[in-house]
Amino acid sequence: MIETRTLSLAEIEDLSFRALVAAGTSEENARPLAVATAATEADGVASHGLAYISIYCEHVQCGKVDGQARPVLAQPRPGVVTADAATGFAHSAIDAGFEILIPAARAQGIAALAIRNSYNCGVLGYHTYRLAQAGLVGLGFTNAPASIAPSGGSKPVVGTNPFSIAAPGTDGQPALLIDQSASTIAKSEVMKHAREGRPIPVGWALDDEGNPTTDPNVGLKGSMAPSGGYKGVGVALLTEVLAAALTGATLGIHASPFSGTAGGPPKTGQFFIAIDANATADDAFSTGIVDLVEAIRSQDGAHLPGDGRRANRLKAQTDGVAVNVATLAKIEALLT
Amino acid sequence: MIETRTLSLAEIEDLSFRALVAAGTSEENARPLAVATAATEADGVASHGLAYISIYCEHVQCGKVDGQARPVLAQPRPGVVTADAATGFAHSAIDAGFEILIPAARAQGIAALAIRNSYNCGVLGYHTYRLAQAGLVGLGFTNAPASIAPSGGSKPVVGTNPFSIAAPGTDGQPALLIDQSASTIAKSEVMKHAREGRPIPVGWALDDEGNPTTDPNVGLKGSMAPSGGYKGVGVALLTEVLAAALTGATLGIHASPFSGTAGGPPKTGQFFIAIDANATADDAFSTGIVDLVEAIRSQDGAHLPGDGRRANRLKAQTDGVAVNVATLAKIEALLT
Repeated sequence: MIETRTLSLAEIEDLSFRALVAAGTSEENARPLAVATAATEADGVASHGLAYISIYCEHVQCGKVDGQARPVLAQPRPGVVTADAATGFAHSAIDAGFEILIPAARAQGIAALAIRNSYNCGVLGYHTYRLAQAGLVGLGFTNAPASIAPSGGSKPVVGTNPFSIAAPGTDGQPALLIDQSASTIAKSEVMKHAREGRPIPVGWALDDEGNPTTDPNVGLKGSMAPSGGYKGVGVALLTEVLAAALTGATLGIHASPFSGTAGGPPKTGQFFIAIDANATADDAFSTGIVDLVEAIRSQDGAHLPGDGRRANRLKAQTDGVAVNVATLAKIEALLT
Repeated sequence: MIETRTLSLAEIEDLSFRALVAAGTSEENARPLAVATAATEADGVASHGLAYISIYCEHVQCGKVDGQARPVLAQPRPGVVTADAATGFAHSAIDAGFEILIPAARAQGIAALAIRNSYNCGVLGYHTYRLAQAGLVGLGFTNAPASIAPSGGSKPVVGTNPFSIAAPGTDGQPALLIDQSASTIAKSEVMKHAREGRPIPVGWALDDEGNPTTDPNVGLKGSMAPSGGYKGVGVALLTEVLAAALTGATLGIHASPFSGTAGGPPKTGQFFIAIDANATADDAFSTGIVDLVEAIRSQDGAHLPGDGRRANRLKAQTDGVAVNVATLAKIEALLT
């Protein structure tokens, strides 16, 4: 059994903030990352919450991310905001970008935020969630080091490249939130199996000639299997075009790894689109979303994307989150 | 062996135009559909080319589509164009919308076209292709009558809902064009197997309790299998939110069938986003796309989405297209 300790969201944010600052992150950069970490723990996505704080700190110290960076913002057209994250944390660039993006989307009806020279943005759905909370339909795309091969090929050309969409709801929470990668399974799961010396199921990864493998180490040297075959490659390419080519960020084929300390900053990108449904559909939008959500919720056992995180989030506000004690010990060691 | 006759693209357009007009379509509405039909045959997508002309004519005559409709356009915000297709053909509404969308995207950096009260738009990639030919990154989404069930459920809530992205190239053709539905296989393939009395492979469709089936008739009463399981449902929901909820169009759960003559107009929707890469990334966009495309093309046997259609298109300009004689006979019968 894993030993846990229950922390309030404020405690999670504070602990994250202090650790990041102790590692050499500026307070301006540490705060958005600490807020996101608390929100990610609240959503129940422990793999990307406090467990990442020691990795972030290590990356500040080895120079994979510049903890003191200041994102450079511009608005070259009324509907486009660009942010050069200057090899700093994605979160600061996204927060600064959203301050311009949100009012621009309301004024123009649609607006985009293109971020380059960036870093792993954590849970993509956290960012689209905030666009939905601002009353906008939020679309997000983020690229990653190449790990998926094209159909018919065997050499990775795109990352597991997630996309996310969040639709505003009428009860203070998004009506629906999709956040999914283009691979069958997260690469971290294959890495975990490799560490534990366990075989992986067929369909998770391919060897370096594109054949199925159950050996996680062979899979890590080969490629990740795209979800649904060539259509998963298509979804990953959609994200690569938007998050990398369209932002001027580094393509997955050239990006340094997100894990480990080697290779310097990955300089990958994020692309967000915010849309004001009042401009495109007037009141029809809310009616449509409520109807669609109800058609899913009314079926016994049917899964509405975002419902799991939503339930965790509402519970965490009052009950806090049970955190792995070993994860906490690792962070607390950074503070002494 | 199927008997064919070779027609030039101009002949295909002319034949389509005359048939549509003879069925009661206005010249304004027939022309964009005839142009699209020729382009679709050029791309080698015969299933959605001339083979659809007799269906379109039948739908005009039974009132599933209003051949005389005039789309109503508006631009409520600088970056948003809306089109009420007035239960007419999608193509006229899209063409009229693009005339405002394209300059708006150049001026604003990004713009959207939201179409409601619409109809089957044919090959979605034909429309994003034209945005790429205008130098813009084109994204397209179109919804369809519900045929895919949510994960854990068994009742369809979303259609096979394709998305498309086309990226402008440097040689007069898109660098890359993705156009894919959210199901494992097109519903028309399952219908074809049903007509021919052949079993379908496991993984194409599910029965009305969500279990795999090899009986196409059972599958048609049940649901289409989403590509990659719950992630395919996620892609279909992305499209449903954009093409239906965000346009004020009819949701897939309420839409009348695209096939057959019953149920009146489907009133489904389309959503397009056009982005000017010069605004988001300056010159870096072309460099990135060329690099990405080369990483795929340089691998023996690797498939670059859009390359097949591109090769067909270039060949058809000079050689014309070999068309099924039975399809031609069906159309020519409409003209006598």
